[in-house]
Amino acid sequence: MTGGTGTTALVSLDDIRRAAERIDGRVHRTPVLRSSSLGEAWGVRLDLKAEVFQRTGSFKARGALNKVLSLPADERALGVITLSAGNAGAAVAYAAASVGVPGTVVMPTTAVPAKIAACRAYGADVVLTDEDLVDTYLATVAETGRVPVHPFDDPAVVAGTGTVGLEIAADVPDAEVVLVPVGGGGLISGVASALAALSPGTRVIGVEPETADVMSRSLAAGAPVRMPEARSVADGLAAPMSSQLTLDHVRAHVERVVRVSDEDVLRALALALPRTKLLLEPSAAAPLAALMTGVLDLPPGTRVVSVASGGNADLTLFGRLPTHEREVP
Amino acid sequence: MTGGTGTTALVSLDDIRRAAERIDGRVHRTPVLRSSSLGEAWGVRLDLKAEVFQRTGSFKARGALNKVLSLPADERALGVITLSAGNAGAAVAYAAASVGVPGTVVMPTTAVPAKIAACRAYGADVVLTDEDLVDTYLATVAETGRVPVHPFDDPAVVAGTGTVGLEIAADVPDAEVVLVPVGGGGLISGVASALAALSPGTRVIGVEPETADVMSRSLAAGAPVRMPEARSVADGLAAPMSSQLTLDHVRAHVERVVRVSDEDVLRALALALPRTKLLLEPSAAAPLAALMTGVLDLPPGTRVVSVASGGNADLTLFGRLPTHEREVP
Repeated sequence: MTGGTGTTALVSLDDIRRAAERIDGRVHRTPVLRSSSLGEAWGVRLDLKAEVFQRTGSFKARGALNKVLSLPADERALGVITLSAGNAGAAVAYAAASVGVPGTVVMPTTAVPAKIAACRAYGADVVLTDEDLVDTYLATVAETGRVPVHPFDDPAVVAGTGTVGLEIAADVPDAEVVLVPVGGGGLISGVASALAALSPGTRVIGVEPETADVMSRSLAAGAPVRMPEARSVADGLAAPMSSQLTLDHVRAHVERVVRVSDEDVLRALALALPRTKLLLEPSAAAPLAALMTGVLDLPPGTRVVSVASGGNADLTLFGRLPTHEREVP
Repeated sequence: MTGGTGTTALVSLDDIRRAAERIDGRVHRTPVLRSSSLGEAWGVRLDLKAEVFQRTGSFKARGALNKVLSLPADERALGVITLSAGNAGAAVAYAAASVGVPGTVVMPTTAVPAKIAACRAYGADVVLTDEDLVDTYLATVAETGRVPVHPFDDPAVVAGTGTVGLEIAADVPDAEVVLVPVGGGGLISGVASALAALSPGTRVIGVEPETADVMSRSLAAGAPVRMPEARSVADGLAAPMSSQLTLDHVRAHVERVVRVSDEDVLRALALALPRTKLLLEPSAAAPLAALMTGVLDLPPGTRVVSVASGGNADLTLFGRLPTHEREVP
């Protein structure tokens, strides 16, 4: 899958390093935590890049901040706006607050109340709608004049998320495989770009839900595709589209993208929660599901880093996880 | 409450330092993690000593290991035995396996299946009974000839748990208040002994459930008391007794012990889970409940370390937490 010729300019290591300087102090340098018990169960040496501890509870803060800080001063002063029912909304709200400009998040009325409250707590205007989300978003952009921040289809966002890759390269220089959850592809684009430059021997593998496999479909089609029906228990990965930008990065730097079922995501989550003691959201468990099922077919003892992308889980889900899995120590 | 004259010998800093050497490499040196969001909400600077990441998922591994490693070789070879439905059982099972001696854990048939499975996974013999637990335990001790390990009423266990205090003193030398969950009192006895020696300006405060307040009752009575009716959602703190040993340590080194309701423990847990991203068990949230309610009356900005004693939570509980609390960001 390497060697694909992109039609967009790829984010460079310099872009990512500049992003790291730009967002320094406004995001956490998250730890890499060894998960011996899960690694032993699955025959690998496993570390988790714990973005659950990131500001706003997910890696999204990095990209949003780099985007806001990259805007020319006059644009930035207009404030920023995004459309999200999830982590990207909180990230843009936080980034706006951190930089001191107004922020707006357009959300469906069905969004989880905690996520609405989080955006408001950062001081953002929250526009709730039960009408067409995109129509409402475009109308609100026009009305407010704020600068749209796309959750992944933007080189500044990709460069920001690439700082996750910088930190993995520094902290786990002997990583053989890095597993990354894939939604629209912003996270894996940035991580793979950093690692391709700094640690070219490290294989980057994406993991996406079977029922929200827009990147696998885009790779097969040779072009970004739309998938409005995308749904998954890993709600952060249910992106309804990829983009030329992320597809080009994946073709250039990612070894492969594999698919996991929602059932396996939940089984992996049920195994991982008691062992890692981290509050993982289902998206963060998708790569663990791929390890669990053996679909990756990694040699025993492979040094794996899995990106635990976020920890904004709906706790009621934890009470409904497959119980027999919890009984295995 | 300081200045109480003990009738047992108190564990010394030297005892704790020797314990640290003894168990080194068999337990994790757990991180201290800043919890800015909770700290801001409650007007303090808050760090969590993350014993959730400890081997076996709780601080109990430290004391059990120090006990097993302190036994003369001939006694140790007999193996060890304990009575527990919870973390102490897994800790003794792990300690036995780590040292390479046989271990037995006597548990009620009503114990959580995951905890039974954990003991077995460490290779321990598990004796399940629905008859009188203590009778079964004493019979099994007699039958197996294994050495009993008490969960807290043993200077070697207290010295082992004291290594938590050593690490807090090293990592947070300017801690003003250290909050410790209290069941039978083993953890706070060790932690307070270490801090009294290394950081005498640090105030150590215990927190126990209202419905399992055996230490408060013991302090009032001036002697250890029994409380067979002790029950709490913080199951790890529902010890049916204190001991002269732990009472003496608390009187010597602990500023005070406060009580929290189960309802407040659950509210604090619901606030803490999404903010800390740590899988805390209810016992670990008891000190957070004391911060939340304001019962401690700490000056604003106080530098607080709260011992997150364990992470072996029943995940089904998380689905039943007070929901309105989860909606606050």
